[in-house]
Amino acid sequence: ASPSERIRATLFPGDGIGPEIAESVKQVFSAAGVPIEWEEHFVGDKVDPRTESLLTWESLESVRRNGVGLKGPMATPIGKGHRSLNLTLRKELGLYANVRPCYSLPGYKTRYDGVNLVTIRENTEGEYSGLEHQVVRGVVESLKIITRQASLRVAEYAFHYAKANGRQRVSAIHKANIMRKTDGLFLKCCREVAEKYPEITYEEVIIDNCCMMLVKNPTLFDVLVMPNLYGDIISDLCAGLIGGLGLTPSCNIGEGGIALAEAVHGSAPDIAGKNLANPTALLLSSVMMLRHLKLNDKADQIHNAILSTIAEGKYRTVDLGGSSSTTDFTKAVCDHL
Amino acid sequence: ASPSERIRATLFPGDGIGPEIAESVKQVFSAAGVPIEWEEHFVGDKVDPRTESLLTWESLESVRRNGVGLKGPMATPIGKGHRSLNLTLRKELGLYANVRPCYSLPGYKTRYDGVNLVTIRENTEGEYSGLEHQVVRGVVESLKIITRQASLRVAEYAFHYAKANGRQRVSAIHKANIMRKTDGLFLKCCREVAEKYPEITYEEVIIDNCCMMLVKNPTLFDVLVMPNLYGDIISDLCAGLIGGLGLTPSCNIGEGGIALAEAVHGSAPDIAGKNLANPTALLLSSVMMLRHLKLNDKADQIHNAILSTIAEGKYRTVDLGGSSSTTDFTKAVCDHL
Ligand SMILES: CC(C)[C@H](C(=O)O)[C@@H](O)C(=O)O
Ligand SMILES: CC(C)[C@H](C(=O)O)[C@@H](O)C(=O)O
Repeated sequence: ASPSERIRATLFPGDGIGPEIAESVKQVFSAAGVPIEWEEHFVGDKVDPRTESLLTWESLESVRRNGVGLKGPMATPIGKGHRSLNLTLRKELGLYANVRPCYSLPGYKTRYDGVNLVTIRENTEGEYSGLEHQVVRGVVESLKIITRQASLRVAEYAFHYAKANGRQRVSAIHKANIMRKTDGLFLKCCREVAEKYPEITYEEVIIDNCCMMLVKNPTLFDVLVMPNLYGDIISDLCAGLIGGLGLTPSCNIGEGGIALAEAVHGSAPDIAGKNLANPTALLLSSVMMLRHLKLNDKADQIHNAILSTIAEGKYRTVDLGGSSSTTDFTKAVCDHL
Repeated sequence: ASPSERIRATLFPGDGIGPEIAESVKQVFSAAGVPIEWEEHFVGDKVDPRTESLLTWESLESVRRNGVGLKGPMATPIGKGHRSLNLTLRKELGLYANVRPCYSLPGYKTRYDGVNLVTIRENTEGEYSGLEHQVVRGVVESLKIITRQASLRVAEYAFHYAKANGRQRVSAIHKANIMRKTDGLFLKCCREVAEKYPEITYEEVIIDNCCMMLVKNPTLFDVLVMPNLYGDIISDLCAGLIGGLGLTPSCNIGEGGIALAEAVHGSAPDIAGKNLANPTALLLSSVMMLRHLKLNDKADQIHNAILSTIAEGKYRTVDLGGSSSTTDFTKAVCDHL
């Protein structure tokens, strides 16, 4: 493809192991001939007054302009007083739905077989409102905000996703027996949307019961949609079922059709720069980005190469009990293309 | 023991399968010669104005007077507008700590071996404040309240419990990277208490990561202490690891040393009255009540009989894949005494 036919996408390599796993994606994309031109942006070393964070205004503009991006882990600077950069991105770009497919990887054995579910998490409000205060000394409160607009939007996305991906069932996860008004509104919105999708089975599952069912029999679930914190918790639980956050991709869907794919594991500063990181989560996330761009052939090709490499089992990074380096694993994926 | 030497304890058989599993406890206690005199109280059919619920004032007074009680499942009447009776009990009796031991049962195989942990849940505030309102149409909020008093109290209990039971480690579960003030206060209180117990290892684990670790390797945990909703979620997850809520006991610790042991599974109206219910959770809960009363010999005897019956595997109720009735299983436990 000539440069003019190439699609521009924003890349945030992120902190810690971020640059190494981002490099892995770049190599696999170029080996596969993916017509993508990366616009790379780094997390800065000083606060940009326009974003009030270490993220520069230019980097946000880049995602808005390109409409797609890929991001590695960003460490939340601890104790420095400013918000998590992950949250800044979600808020600034209106990334309202966080989609995390979670499926057993052939050849990588865990306690569970045949897991194949997708969590869709409301990503902008709920328990993440940031509204907290001290009422009197020793008494603090935080506000959970649920709006009709954000709930409808994420519910719409969940049903749309289920239909587009041939999935049968959407489960809304909640605690409306206790939080009757907030989670109650969330459920009401899900029900409204469910009526427009009679071909998809809709059910409601209380979060505690959902967690018990997930560890007993995760194959009972298909698409799960839920408020922010429940999504945070359940998506990590689900990742654990198939091997951990090093293996699960994620993609954030935002206003105006923006998509920011993201590896949701940490920045692992202890192994940063040592060529030990597992690039699988970021690679699988990049595949989600390609699907969003409707580059399905490239997506399939790369996806199959990653899965074959893992299934073959010859090249495995340390976190999966192997001894391959990041670059060895990456080369193996390229060889499987 | 003559009636005067007998200890009075309150019994709430509860709804649905409650009376059948309560009957099982009564039979096992009498077979084991436990010197307990039950004061039975039922969930009423009309609202008592003094409790504003289906729980009568007399039943609350009974627990306060006796200091100990055992409760079966109580269904929350749906849509009738009054609160869950479980919550009413927790609030009225100041049941500030909900203790749920969770351990693999020898002979009952699940995906996990050697689970042996205890969740200790703050039981009176947090996300269960009941404070919710509509701000404007389509925007609702709920308040999570964390107080220094309740957090210190449950943290004290957790460390006290760990020490008294020879446990090595207490993990405080939180989301203070997001809810900095509320969960931050909870952690601050845990740290304060931890300093008084240098012999116990203290750590802090973010809830999403905790759930992932629990499904990957639950043997990493020992005692977990946490705010209300996290406890609700994590205790059910843990129950799932060893077979479900039908197998896990629980005991609520309240102001002035009150203890209300409780089976936390549902009332299972579909199988109520059919002699199919599994009494294990209520039986194991009654053992926790006996330990609270320092009737350790009786507690050990009954505990061993329950575990032997399950290990033997000849009498198993339907939920565990067997075909024994409630009464068959109960008889088997009595025979193992
Ligand atoms: C890092 C943290 C702020 C973030 C969250 O809580 O959302 C993470 O756990 C995630 O799931 O993306
Ligand atoms: C029934 C429900 C109100 C209750 C809770 O949420 O606390 C239950 O799930 C529990 O764990 O005891």
